[in-house]
Amino acid sequence: MQEPAPQTALNAEQRAMLQEILRGALDGMTLLTAENELKAYECDALTVFTRPPLAVALPETEAQVQAVLQTCSGLGIPVTVRGAGTGLTGSGTATPDGLLLAMARFNRILKIDPQARTATVEPGVRNQAVSDAAAPYGLFYAPDPSSQLACTIGGNIAQNAGGLHCLKYGLTTHNVLKIRAVLMDGGIIELGGEAYDAPGLDLLPLFIGSEGMFAAVTEVVLKLLPKPQTAQVIQASFADMGKAGRAVADIIAEGIIPAGLEMMDGASTRAVDDYLHAGFDREAEALLLCESDGMAEEVEAEIGKIRHILTRAGATSLKVSRNEIERTAIWAGRKSVFPAAARLAPDSYCMDGTIPRRKIGEMLDFTDGLSKKYRLQCINVFHAGDGNMHPLILFDNQAGEWPRAEAFGAEILRRCVQLGGTITGEHGVGLEKIDGMCAQFGEGERAAFWGIKAAFDPEMLLNRDKKLPLKTRCAEYARTFDGGGIAAKFPDLEYF
Amino acid sequence: MQEPAPQTALNAEQRAMLQEILRGALDGMTLLTAENELKAYECDALTVFTRPPLAVALPETEAQVQAVLQTCSGLGIPVTVRGAGTGLTGSGTATPDGLLLAMARFNRILKIDPQARTATVEPGVRNQAVSDAAAPYGLFYAPDPSSQLACTIGGNIAQNAGGLHCLKYGLTTHNVLKIRAVLMDGGIIELGGEAYDAPGLDLLPLFIGSEGMFAAVTEVVLKLLPKPQTAQVIQASFADMGKAGRAVADIIAEGIIPAGLEMMDGASTRAVDDYLHAGFDREAEALLLCESDGMAEEVEAEIGKIRHILTRAGATSLKVSRNEIERTAIWAGRKSVFPAAARLAPDSYCMDGTIPRRKIGEMLDFTDGLSKKYRLQCINVFHAGDGNMHPLILFDNQAGEWPRAEAFGAEILRRCVQLGGTITGEHGVGLEKIDGMCAQFGEGERAAFWGIKAAFDPEMLLNRDKKLPLKTRCAEYARTFDGGGIAAKFPDLEYF
Repeated sequence: MQEPAPQTALNAEQRAMLQEILRGALDGMTLLTAENELKAYECDALTVFTRPPLAVALPETEAQVQAVLQTCSGLGIPVTVRGAGTGLTGSGTATPDGLLLAMARFNRILKIDPQARTATVEPGVRNQAVSDAAAPYGLFYAPDPSSQLACTIGGNIAQNAGGLHCLKYGLTTHNVLKIRAVLMDGGIIELGGEAYDAPGLDLLPLFIGSEGMFAAVTEVVLKLLPKPQTAQVIQASFADMGKAGRAVADIIAEGIIPAGLEMMDGASTRAVDDYLHAGFDREAEALLLCESDGMAEEVEAEIGKIRHILTRAGATSLKVSRNEIERTAIWAGRKSVFPAAARLAPDSYCMDGTIPRRKIGEMLDFTDGLSKKYRLQCINVFHAGDGNMHPLILFDNQAGEWPRAEAFGAEILRRCVQLGGTITGEHGVGLEKIDGMCAQFGEGERAAFWGIKAAFDPEMLLNRDKKLPLKTRCAEYARTFDGGGIAAKFPDLEYF
Repeated sequence: MQEPAPQTALNAEQRAMLQEILRGALDGMTLLTAENELKAYECDALTVFTRPPLAVALPETEAQVQAVLQTCSGLGIPVTVRGAGTGLTGSGTATPDGLLLAMARFNRILKIDPQARTATVEPGVRNQAVSDAAAPYGLFYAPDPSSQLACTIGGNIAQNAGGLHCLKYGLTTHNVLKIRAVLMDGGIIELGGEAYDAPGLDLLPLFIGSEGMFAAVTEVVLKLLPKPQTAQVIQASFADMGKAGRAVADIIAEGIIPAGLEMMDGASTRAVDDYLHAGFDREAEALLLCESDGMAEEVEAEIGKIRHILTRAGATSLKVSRNEIERTAIWAGRKSVFPAAARLAPDSYCMDGTIPRRKIGEMLDFTDGLSKKYRLQCINVFHAGDGNMHPLILFDNQAGEWPRAEAFGAEILRRCVQLGGTITGEHGVGLEKIDGMCAQFGEGERAAFWGIKAAFDPEMLLNRDKKLPLKTRCAEYARTFDGGGIAAKFPDLEYF
């Protein structure tokens, strides 16, 4: 069997010895091993899982990356590659007693080629910096996760990041042409290319979204797109989420692919309005934001069509942005849902499931039921166009509500799978959703995943405890869910 | 090492014995073993490599596919999955002493879902049949290889087939949502889904274009697109290929993505005109065909822009199709280049390399030089928009010209790789271009390919001698090319 073998934890003495060996082997490179330095790297943005790494390496050249991986390979030390640490699922948190390979110093934009419309960058470059560098040529890099000011291209590749505009412009996997990476044995691998088709096996999509399990990326060629001449966004209010959901289906059914198509429920709309005073419709029980971009006349025609569809679908009010300031303000509102929610409850747990668009109504009913069952409020925002939902479960950790929030989330993800969707749209699996992978995939698929991991990393050292569950873990998951384990865990819940 | 072990050929007695065992094990299924029946399955459309299979199985249900694969797995018999046999590289030709798993009877369209815009089909369904079934709903299936009347969806998946319209609508990999397949051990695997993103590892693109090396596909969900309201094609004549090549770059640089963008040289244009009397410009040394599709007003505007660009790029004459009959006739002409070429020479060898668009001129000069070096005529047609070139090398097999044609082709492919392109755009690797894979990929990538093959097919029984070269073979290739082996093979050629 190709799964990694279990590991026992090191004691303080063993850790100190390994740190000493690493310092000797990686002389000339920044290597952090002091307690207080390691503390800063103990987690990514999923702060409930903390693990101080054995050491943090900050290489500056590809040769140094090779040295780190070869050294760790020789010593059997697990390695986790880390970008900006903005990930929401723990992918960038170290494996126990593992080294953290931080790519922060790979932060150069190597080339913008306006003719070929490509950007060649190092993985530590921030997402927004690519579009900034491309702007003088009238180009931009399309994937725009909400964290784009901070998150890096390497992390975007690890998670196959999306964003508000991915319905029209695709996810990271649709916007990366080529990557160069270092394998655990120090070997270099290049995947993809500028030509339209890849011969051999198409490994590039396999690496994008692989959460650092195969290799450490050192260079990336990104696709750039011409910046649309103009863009406008419509805000439509609805009396309930079901109606808004049907409007989404209607827009898509007309063959329109909006640049963005977002849905917010009444609670999140009011939370944002309290937070930003952005003039959102506080009476609406559902708000739809629909953007059109392109040539001015195309946008005008499309906005006209969308208005017509939304009115027919029962919108109670429509508002179209009149200029860039209004348009930007609307999107800033949408992007502020999570900080705004912090005013509603001390803690929140953001889910990231996807479902086929036509199931939106059904899923909302289900979430409502869970909200009653677990006695926790849940507010809903959706990348509605691509069926990527972000229910935000509100709870109070100090009041001991986390286990209920966690179970609430697990049930949502399981339902996503049952409805023909997935447990993650853009945040990845990491540590957080590793049990969800048991719901998502059968034993055959999981065995294939481990087999593929072994093809690139036979010693199973790269991010070994993320994303892919062990057989034993899935057996435990099955017992919990199918054997009534959840009911046993929460005997006081009224809905069981 | 994970490469397959070498196999020794069976003698007649051993073949007969295995056939007898197969007949017993696969009772109730059509199994061909008679010499004359096997003869009909000895090759695909690459007729220079013939190998009568050990047996041909024609299952009708998924359970029968499982039975065939499990039985062969138990007996150690290699298996090749076959669609319509229209492939150009030998992927559908049996491995020596191997069984051919012919999917011809999996020919049902299971569902057309106009709401979700999907078609669920079996792999033996012909490409054209999908669009025919979708037409009543105003939908179509986009990939349109020239063989679309005969080739099947299963074969399209195996080769990641493209077509005349793939610049705008993508290759097979961009138009398949989900596949279900049987692994060599009889296990079922499902990849992809209707949701926008895939959690876990994105294995679907890995399977598409894998040339039957991982599993036998039994069911496919395809994406359907709304049929464009209208389409028009411009024919532009140029005095040389270089100018036409630059016009291609100009069109793309303006941000236009034509539905089709094809280039033919003077020789192929005249050959087609002799063949079809289609009214092509016989004086042109280069012909560009550029199609626009969409809403009537969009097409009119786009055709106007393209006209302007082509005139500025030096087109000597322009002709726009005025109706569907004229448009269809132009594409019929383009699709007839290969049959038309049969009038120029007894045999032809069709190459399928890709290059970055901006390298078209450089590549044409190189091909011209090779044409003189090998003293063989070569006519050129291009899917210019996506840089996929199909040089057609003309030769006379009876006059012993094949080895020169083969070496000519090998040099073209090697140059494609050097220019940043690939050895195959849409025909695949198969038996024909297996040496080209040595030029395309380094040892690290090739080892990863074998590792991935082992993850799905650890016994290395599925299409084991196609697509992926053994290390020993690449060593031999390096000796031939880099050690002056080609010059030694052709001492009479003037250019060495």
